[in-house]
Amino acid sequence: MTESVFYADLPWPEVAARVAAGAPIFLPLGATEQHGRHMALNVDVVIPTAIAVRAASLVGGLVLPTVAYGNRSQPKTGGGPRFPGTLNLTAHTFALIVRDVICDLYRQNVRKIVTVNGHFENIGPTIEGIELALDALGRDVVRDLVILRVDHWDMVQPQTLDRIFPDGYPGIELEHASVIETSIMLALRPELVDLARATHDGPANFRPYDRYPRPSDEVPDSGVLSLTEGSSAEKGEWLLADSVNGIVAMIESEFSKGCKA
Amino acid sequence: MTESVFYADLPWPEVAARVAAGAPIFLPLGATEQHGRHMALNVDVVIPTAIAVRAASLVGGLVLPTVAYGNRSQPKTGGGPRFPGTLNLTAHTFALIVRDVICDLYRQNVRKIVTVNGHFENIGPTIEGIELALDALGRDVVRDLVILRVDHWDMVQPQTLDRIFPDGYPGIELEHASVIETSIMLALRPELVDLARATHDGPANFRPYDRYPRPSDEVPDSGVLSLTEGSSAEKGEWLLADSVNGIVAMIESEFSKGCKA
Amino acid sequence: MTESVFYADLPWPEVAARVAAGAPIFLPLGATEQHGRHMALNVDVVIPTAIAVRAASLVGGLVLPTVAYGNRSQPKTGGGPRFPGTLNLTAHTFALIVRDVICDLYRQNVRKIVTVNGHFENIGPTIEGIELALDALGRDVVRDLVILRVDHWDMVQPQTLDRIFPDGYPGIELEHASVIETSIMLALRPELVDLARATHDGPANFRPYDRYPRPSDEVPDSGVLSLTEGSSAEKGEWLLADSVNGIVAMIESEFSKGCKA
Amino acid sequence: MTESVFYADLPWPEVAARVAAGAPIFLPLGATEQHGRHMALNVDVVIPTAIAVRAASLVGGLVLPTVAYGNRSQPKTGGGPRFPGTLNLTAHTFALIVRDVICDLYRQNVRKIVTVNGHFENIGPTIEGIELALDALGRDVVRDLVILRVDHWDMVQPQTLDRIFPDGYPGIELEHASVIETSIMLALRPELVDLARATHDGPANFRPYDRYPRPSDEVPDSGVLSLTEGSSAEKGEWLLADSVNGIVAMIESEFSKGCKA
Amino acid sequence: MTESVFYADLPWPEVAARVAAGAPIFLPLGATEQHGRHMALNVDVVIPTAIAVRAASLVGGLVLPTVAYGNRSQPKTGGGPRFPGTLNLTAHTFALIVRDVICDLYRQNVRKIVTVNGHFENIGPTIEGIELALDALGRDVVRDLVILRVDHWDMVQPQTLDRIFPDGYPGIELEHASVIETSIMLALRPELVDLARATHDGPANFRPYDRYPRPSDEVPDSGVLSLTEGSSAEKGEWLLADSVNGIVAMIESEFSKGCKA
Amino acid sequence: MTESVFYADLPWPEVAARVAAGAPIFLPLGATEQHGRHMALNVDVVIPTAIAVRAASLVGGLVLPTVAYGNRSQPKTGGGPRFPGTLNLTAHTFALIVRDVICDLYRQNVRKIVTVNGHFENIGPTIEGIELALDALGRDVVRDLVILRVDHWDMVQPQTLDRIFPDGYPGIELEHASVIETSIMLALRPELVDLARATHDGPANFRPYDRYPRPSDEVPDSGVLSLTEGSSAEKGEWLLADSVNGIVAMIESEFSKGCKA
Repeated sequence: MTESVFYADLPWPEVAARVAAGAPIFLPLGATEQHGRHMALNVDVVIPTAIAVRAASLVGGLVLPTVAYGNRSQPKTGGGPRFPGTLNLTAHTFALIVRDVICDLYRQNVRKIVTVNGHFENIGPTIEGIELALDALGRDVVRDLVILRVDHWDMVQPQTLDRIFPDGYPGIELEHASVIETSIMLALRPELVDLARATHDGPANFRPYDRYPRPSDEVPDSGVLSLTEGSSAEKGEWLLADSVNGIVAMIESEFSKGCKA
Repeated sequence: MTESVFYADLPWPEVAARVAAGAPIFLPLGATEQHGRHMALNVDVVIPTAIAVRAASLVGGLVLPTVAYGNRSQPKTGGGPRFPGTLNLTAHTFALIVRDVICDLYRQNVRKIVTVNGHFENIGPTIEGIELALDALGRDVVRDLVILRVDHWDMVQPQTLDRIFPDGYPGIELEHASVIETSIMLALRPELVDLARATHDGPANFRPYDRYPRPSDEVPDSGVLSLTEGSSAEKGEWLLADSVNGIVAMIESEFSKGCKA
Repeated sequence: MTESVFYADLPWPEVAARVAAGAPIFLPLGATEQHGRHMALNVDVVIPTAIAVRAASLVGGLVLPTVAYGNRSQPKTGGGPRFPGTLNLTAHTFALIVRDVICDLYRQNVRKIVTVNGHFENIGPTIEGIELALDALGRDVVRDLVILRVDHWDMVQPQTLDRIFPDGYPGIELEHASVIETSIMLALRPELVDLARATHDGPANFRPYDRYPRPSDEVPDSGVLSLTEGSSAEKGEWLLADSVNGIVAMIESEFSKGCKA
Repeated sequence: MTESVFYADLPWPEVAARVAAGAPIFLPLGATEQHGRHMALNVDVVIPTAIAVRAASLVGGLVLPTVAYGNRSQPKTGGGPRFPGTLNLTAHTFALIVRDVICDLYRQNVRKIVTVNGHFENIGPTIEGIELALDALGRDVVRDLVILRVDHWDMVQPQTLDRIFPDGYPGIELEHASVIETSIMLALRPELVDLARATHDGPANFRPYDRYPRPSDEVPDSGVLSLTEGSSAEKGEWLLADSVNGIVAMIESEFSKGCKA
Repeated sequence: MTESVFYADLPWPEVAARVAAGAPIFLPLGATEQHGRHMALNVDVVIPTAIAVRAASLVGGLVLPTVAYGNRSQPKTGGGPRFPGTLNLTAHTFALIVRDVICDLYRQNVRKIVTVNGHFENIGPTIEGIELALDALGRDVVRDLVILRVDHWDMVQPQTLDRIFPDGYPGIELEHASVIETSIMLALRPELVDLARATHDGPANFRPYDRYPRPSDEVPDSGVLSLTEGSSAEKGEWLLADSVNGIVAMIESEFSKGCKA
Repeated sequence: MTESVFYADLPWPEVAARVAAGAPIFLPLGATEQHGRHMALNVDVVIPTAIAVRAASLVGGLVLPTVAYGNRSQPKTGGGPRFPGTLNLTAHTFALIVRDVICDLYRQNVRKIVTVNGHFENIGPTIEGIELALDALGRDVVRDLVILRVDHWDMVQPQTLDRIFPDGYPGIELEHASVIETSIMLALRPELVDLARATHDGPANFRPYDRYPRPSDEVPDSGVLSLTEGSSAEKGEWLLADSVNGIVAMIESEFSKGCKA
């Protein structure tokens, strides 16, 4: 039978043995969301999954199935919930998924959980899902549980951003479908990127407030919030390396007991 | 850019065009659940995804990301919620996912939806999710929406079951991790099956009632509810062919407007 | 004051004493749902209530008020949620009722609970309600609690089905408002049955999938999914006897401590 | 087939015809709650059901199955949620039941609904359930729907109270399990009353506030909040007559279109 | 830094010290609801806040921010949810606020909580919120927690009512925006009262039942359910004194351990 | 009667008239959360309320009661949910409050709503509450509704930040209880600030990920995430002016119809 870093590729006795041996369990959190005319809708799924796979391979961890539907996309960070192609869960639904998975992992004796997020709008409901799981399990009860919550872009080193953005980093929110995500996708799944379709109608110049139900027309038609120029697979590998190394270092620092297979 | 039957492998303009052209959208519904010592935990994900891909390819449809976490496994149909490796959502969470995805598909002008289910316990919450979506959208409003809900095993022809089970079909519930699922996995992902690990401790002989919170010890230790002997990739292809053909015929019958690309 | 097998016919000190003495508590679960032109809407209430009463009488148990509103009727198993006369709860509401009643029984020291179900669509939400109660009470806490969940038709012996259906049993789902339910009603409440009104427009020949929001027109106009011919009170008594005997045997087997008054 | 005032005793074509003819539909709302040592737990079910039956008989209405589980009993109005025998739903569960039933009645073209309540603590969640149904159906949409909400004790005429309580009426809250309810039960179901068991440990002298989680010990041990002396079936009939007559007058006044069969 | 009876006017170390010293924590519960043409919408906020402040000052307690949005106003007790100006929460939302605040107070070692309510329709959802908090915290766990729930009008002495209503007290429900509330507002915030605008179109003569979705036209146009004549600041002070004294006496009686700073 | 910018200080006819005249309605969103040893717990209430009041005064708007309980504080942005003094709502509760208030405003013909937020963790649940309100009201229905969502710190001009932070702005998240909030509080409520108590144990140096249930010990003991040195009332007024001017400009730009009284 296959060796695999994917939790669900293994039969249950193998998973049970790996959990008993202290394997950290990775939960990638993504979305199905527009990422410009030049990239597929699964960018927020592909990236955190790949990072989790690389990190888990290095630390003897296992990667759960990625949650492929994310919390409602917002105009300033992803184009918004009404953009064609984007599919949105309510915040409550997303939080309940996270709660249920964490509760069940705990009941199966998993004590080391790492969520790796690829979709900005998931941050809040992921935190809420974790808090709801802790409420349900009992904070006084789960003394040996550690959950680490990572947004992959926060693991990127400042010097890497300096190399990629010599004229200054626009910030992760504006980076939607832009150089960072495009570069990582070029590194991971180049067949899902077609830079020839990038229409360069950005960057967005957002007003400092939100309008509902009809957002102001500041989202570029393409859905790219910033720029794609300068994207490359090489830069994508720099970014991936930072995220993976950061997560490995985090795990070595935070999980007291050795967890490498 | 890649041609793909996967909705999320495409950029948003391509998805929007395909939806406008009448492409049916497939939503595979799975689970992460023990399937015996001889198979991976992702059987209920792999099978409905593969069937949806084959059917969508034939009818010009698109396949959404599979929901990889299912409603709580039960002892008689999947080993139960406390089996190692199995991860369970509450029925409410699962129904909300289905509701949210359907509501958002509708708002993006999708009018032909096909759910393809691979996990017995998902049946009820899928129905509830569909009903909740219809409640939210308004049954009087959604006049041009058609949702078809398929459990892949129900598409298998009686004659195929006769060929596979010359001594009689034990019924889909007992078939958990048994000949049907094992054969299909041998056809689709043989590297995730190791028949040498099958321990032949079944079939289960269930009492005609359920006990909670500690089910009676009728679930075989392996998690295989019936038998694996006689499984083969060839039989798996028979079963897949029935499901795919059945779905294609269903789509041709139910969706009035032609939807082939 | 009256002796009674009904929990709610007794004053609280009597109930408290019976619970302290180990009486199993029966919770019948029904529905208000069309059952053809020839039977009342309360078939799914009358039958599980009567079975619970007979079984409770034999084992010194008490019968709670029947939940008379069931989870949404579906076309293939009951005619569907839009059939005239049928009243439907959402799955979540039904599950919450079961959760609340079980939680409160537990807090009042009841440790032996038997749910007796008469409505197919209740199966999933009853399981969910039980699981929610266990989540709320704490599975590690409720060590002495046993909940048995029974669908009355599953208690019928194969030989009884052979006697009633010499040409083969169509399965419980198609049996809606058909020979089994009609026979039991003839035994229990003949004034609620009028075979002269049965219109023989079945059996239904369902497609192997579901369609929403407008189901295919396969449900016979009468709402009878199979046949009523051959129904008789005598057969009804055979069926009742199987269910009652099965439940009594189950209780004797599952509840370690004697519970007869 | 039987003539019946009970909705669920009829087959669906008869119910559909009666609804089409304008029959008001009665929904009795009760509880399973301690009512002293001298009465059964079903007082709050028996009374509103009987009143609804009598009123429906007079106006050509139909009576739905009584909701037999009520919102959490409180010490000052029913002894409290921890009294032996009492079974409590959360307010949310109770409200959802009312919501679901009303929504489904509306969808089946019922436009005249009368809720008849027998349990003080149900008042709030009944109102909430009605409001939730109106929110769901759309207040602008349901222009021809009328829901009347009755607490049976509010229909009693002042002169009747004067006759029954020549020394002054203590108010309905203190009347729990006391003269009013005992008298009505003596009229309706005398076999469920045993005045010899009444222990006369009241009336309760409640402090003007509530304490949680352990209420002050002001609830008499018996669960009778006031007095039972002076209860009689004759007084029960006076009270029933007031309620029934009040409801009939209300229906004649509020439902513009004649609704008698 | 300021001395203050308001919890939120203090820095966290001061609050922590006061809680550790046994200070009771007051939670005022109000509403934003019409109170006639002659008074502001914040009557139900102003009154319980002022009472809590006075009582807390006397017993060394702290007053939390008032919940300023209440459960849905009803016609007979506040004019109803559609009255201009009134803003309504659902019962579930209101109960969740109470639940969350109590749970968090408990986790921060607060063991003495007093809710002071100024809005009739809040009673039920406040009880439900308290019960939900107890369900979540575990009734067996919170052995040292005491929550006291007060409706300010229930603290008024009978002799005070006799002085204010020599012709008989109409009852608190009809008192909405009438003499009691007007008098207290004249005492507390006279600038928010303009008796010249009182239109004397009451008192309401309510039918003994509720009608939905369009209540009968019994609510006086002004929104005043009874009368305003005879209101005075002096009477307001009598009422406030009763409430404050009653709460102080309650606290001295119920909280065993001294709690004055 | 008083003139007031506070919605709830007015009687209902005045509010109805102001709404009919097009007054924008402001909803300030705050929290009760630790803000260091040197400031009160109500910083996130005081600031958005004051900004809303100033802006509303300039544009003829009205200010609703501030929601004084916020979504769960997190360590990196507010010290975390277990910090003494902080009181937390779940994300779902907070979103429901926003949903309910917006739905009710809409039903009362308010079409111009401005939420002014003072608590970082409220951003997500406020968006969710708005989306839930739009889901409930129907996005196709509310064509004339405009909701503007403002976080006050986002209205501050870059040049103001340059003046205040000549060495570089640390970003709003780290600014918790630091120079920005302290300066604004010195301008608004100096009696709630005592700089002598500031302990200078920051700035926090957060790891780029979150840990649950026990956050890493990176939150300074004081709860101040950055620095307080250099705070002044004058700087507070600069910040307030930016926020107020920004909101006024936003309103003039976004609300087509004039709305000044």
